[in-house]
Amino acid sequence: MAEKLLPQIFKFVDQNAESYKNLLKEAVAIPSVSSDAKYRDECIRMVHWTEQKLKDVGASTQLRDVGFQTLDGKEVKLPPVLVGVLGKDPKKNTICIYGHLDVQPALKSDGWNTEPFELVEKDGKLFGRGSTDDKGPVLGWFHAINAYKGVGEELPVNLKFVFECMEESGSEGLDDLLMKELKPEGFFEDVDFVCISDNYWLGTTKPCITYGLRGISYYFLEVECAKMDLHSGVYGGTVHEAMTDLIYLMSQLVDKNGKILIPGIYNSVAPLTENEKNLYTTIDFDPEAYRNSIGAYKLAHEGVKEQLLMHRWRYPSLSLHGIEGAAFQPGAKTVVPGKVIGKFSIRLVPNQEPEEIEQLVFDYVNKKWAEHGSPNKMNITAQSGRAWTENPDHPHYQAAARATKLIYQTDPDMSREGGSIPVTITLQEASGRNVLLLPMGAGDDMAHSQNEKLNVRNYIEGVRLLFYLSLTRCCSWIR
Amino acid sequence: MAEKLLPQIFKFVDQNAESYKNLLKEAVAIPSVSSDAKYRDECIRMVHWTEQKLKDVGASTQLRDVGFQTLDGKEVKLPPVLVGVLGKDPKKNTICIYGHLDVQPALKSDGWNTEPFELVEKDGKLFGRGSTDDKGPVLGWFHAINAYKGVGEELPVNLKFVFECMEESGSEGLDDLLMKELKPEGFFEDVDFVCISDNYWLGTTKPCITYGLRGISYYFLEVECAKMDLHSGVYGGTVHEAMTDLIYLMSQLVDKNGKILIPGIYNSVAPLTENEKNLYTTIDFDPEAYRNSIGAYKLAHEGVKEQLLMHRWRYPSLSLHGIEGAAFQPGAKTVVPGKVIGKFSIRLVPNQEPEEIEQLVFDYVNKKWAEHGSPNKMNITAQSGRAWTENPDHPHYQAAARATKLIYQTDPDMSREGGSIPVTITLQEASGRNVLLLPMGAGDDMAHSQNEKLNVRNYIEGVRLLFYLSLTRCCSWIR
Repeated sequence: MAEKLLPQIFKFVDQNAESYKNLLKEAVAIPSVSSDAKYRDECIRMVHWTEQKLKDVGASTQLRDVGFQTLDGKEVKLPPVLVGVLGKDPKKNTICIYGHLDVQPALKSDGWNTEPFELVEKDGKLFGRGSTDDKGPVLGWFHAINAYKGVGEELPVNLKFVFECMEESGSEGLDDLLMKELKPEGFFEDVDFVCISDNYWLGTTKPCITYGLRGISYYFLEVECAKMDLHSGVYGGTVHEAMTDLIYLMSQLVDKNGKILIPGIYNSVAPLTENEKNLYTTIDFDPEAYRNSIGAYKLAHEGVKEQLLMHRWRYPSLSLHGIEGAAFQPGAKTVVPGKVIGKFSIRLVPNQEPEEIEQLVFDYVNKKWAEHGSPNKMNITAQSGRAWTENPDHPHYQAAARATKLIYQTDPDMSREGGSIPVTITLQEASGRNVLLLPMGAGDDMAHSQNEKLNVRNYIEGVRLLFYLSLTRCCSWIR
Repeated sequence: MAEKLLPQIFKFVDQNAESYKNLLKEAVAIPSVSSDAKYRDECIRMVHWTEQKLKDVGASTQLRDVGFQTLDGKEVKLPPVLVGVLGKDPKKNTICIYGHLDVQPALKSDGWNTEPFELVEKDGKLFGRGSTDDKGPVLGWFHAINAYKGVGEELPVNLKFVFECMEESGSEGLDDLLMKELKPEGFFEDVDFVCISDNYWLGTTKPCITYGLRGISYYFLEVECAKMDLHSGVYGGTVHEAMTDLIYLMSQLVDKNGKILIPGIYNSVAPLTENEKNLYTTIDFDPEAYRNSIGAYKLAHEGVKEQLLMHRWRYPSLSLHGIEGAAFQPGAKTVVPGKVIGKFSIRLVPNQEPEEIEQLVFDYVNKKWAEHGSPNKMNITAQSGRAWTENPDHPHYQAAARATKLIYQTDPDMSREGGSIPVTITLQEASGRNVLLLPMGAGDDMAHSQNEKLNVRNYIEGVRLLFYLSLTRCCSWIR
């Protein structure tokens, strides 16, 4: 079978590369930014667009209403979750595929070289917001399914789909849908494993399969000194300014080397075993290439490879993201902001429970605020998701590793990720099955950043990879 | 003469109130934001619009080209300065009038109740960006000049005009025009005094005349850790983050009570004399009303009136305005900014020279940066304007006080301002004459803030006041 199928698929996928790019272009053109209420209609449009594509490949679909959220002080409708089923043959294995259709905010003025919501191909790269995170990988599945039809083969697995449009904003509403509706309905009963393509290779040439993710605990630290913004000339010197208080609190969170200053924060981090420690030494990771790819002056931890990997995957990190309500435009705005909201987050690692971490942060910030002794009003809130790890020796991981080797002619690294996909845990709990993170994009794809891209190579070979992965009932053949 | 003229003018101005509002509506509708390159054409449009109005009252005009500026990394043309002359009768006094046509940025989403660039009248208030700062006061002069025609009287003074559209952005290009072109050309030779209406009453009911302004020293504190923004999950823990460094530096500038932490910053502040100290006790200023008007929890200096006035007028203050390049939108953006620019300013007071203050700040920030020991790149730049004071016993101030009393039936307070109008000093130096700051707006007009407004009362009575002020050759009559 392999002898016949392999060259056919290679040819079919290559012949359809242009149509794959065109479909991604359509998807990227929908600015489905989930964090900003003014793009909510675009998120909903993106879900409907994807539902049509899912119908086009023959799946039955449902749009599941998941209620409302409070965003920017207003009640806003959440985009529906798109659920689909393709094939119910009890003799076949069933893969549940998860992907997200929403994107991080992006403006040309942020420093993009091209319009963020217009897919542009240059030097073998497809630039556009969402190209790699996560619209390209989602579309990869549609292309893989179509490839069976293209070469006249029957789909060898049943597929189930869960596509949401709120991942970049805490997957609001999804947990309840998975645990309280889909699970009781038996949606996961015949699922053999879950596959998510929403992460990246470690570098730019070698594929990997991912068995761990950090969680995230995101904080909104609000300080108010007045009911409005004030002219700094007229009011400066007569009010206790909110920015002064906020900057003070933000300065107490982390030191210049990235050490988190919140007492107890490292206590529950999973202990490093000798076995795990050895894993890092064999991973293909070049700190100098990594440093160069982002133009950093110097990496943390003196640029030592194992330290970098560990601090990216198994130790928590705290980042200060910015301030809402203060001057952010170019030029000299002379305003004393009346209310400011500092944003920071802690990436959580195995054994760190979000509730425990949130409490440590709240206690510390409240203590620092009391010591500070400002007459202004302070409030801190959080939204969090747990870290996740899976056993990389599981048979499904081994099968995915073999599929990867077939496509890329090399054994994939077994890696973790520093980022967070909280739904991974929920899918693991809802299905009671193994969850596999199979990245499509490269390590320099710049998800969340300016000039996000997906390499044409990763997109096209990724389609082949997903095709092979869906041959799981042929595991023995792939083996 | 007075018996005949007074009621005629009162009647004429009242009859024309609607047309005054309509003209202000036109002016506010032009979003002449000078700090943002994308509004530069609107600034130029605003200058042309005003030139036509100046021609309409019979003045001869010139648009003076003042070259280019670097804004947001690009070379951008500066709006021309509008210069005008109305009357050259050697038997008459000549007043030079300065005003600015540009405005601070404003977005509805900043928290405005109405569209910022649409003048809306409500409860006797004219809401709109620029209504009080400084389009209303500029138009006041046109109305006052027209009032002479309206009652069939000849203008009793010669007028000269200098209107710019860069005041909110450091009056770029204006100093050179005033000192190196207009002054050598003899523009100021016949000027008796300069009048600027670009400040506010202290409160909301009692008029004032202003004899002092603080200067400003505005700082751009840039820290770069990478050539692009980074995903906090992927990179967090492996880079020295620019925000951590910037927040640290910003936290070292001022304490929660507003005390500036830069060594030597208070050394050159003009000493407080017993005479000056006594001045503050008689000023009409109600701290509790002031606190209420801005909704502050508690004022600085325990809310003591004299302390508040002194810290607003004669002591420097440092405000942290915000951060460019970091997340500022609502919601949870999980980005590690690659380059951030912290913005802060110090309001300068008499005897504080900008060069001296800039040096103190640079030295301190560089020292703190060296102590901090980050591998990232830091750079600090500044733009500054000096503080200004004038002798409030000067005959022109006394004449303005009498005019004010005629309109408002009360002696004005002789006050200073906490804000900065750097051109005041240049106009003083260029003309070699007395500069008078005669405010039109009220203390709660919220210039630079959300919901900026000009009271209808202040606008209409302000026109009468400017009418009377132009009767300076009749000082003996007013006296």
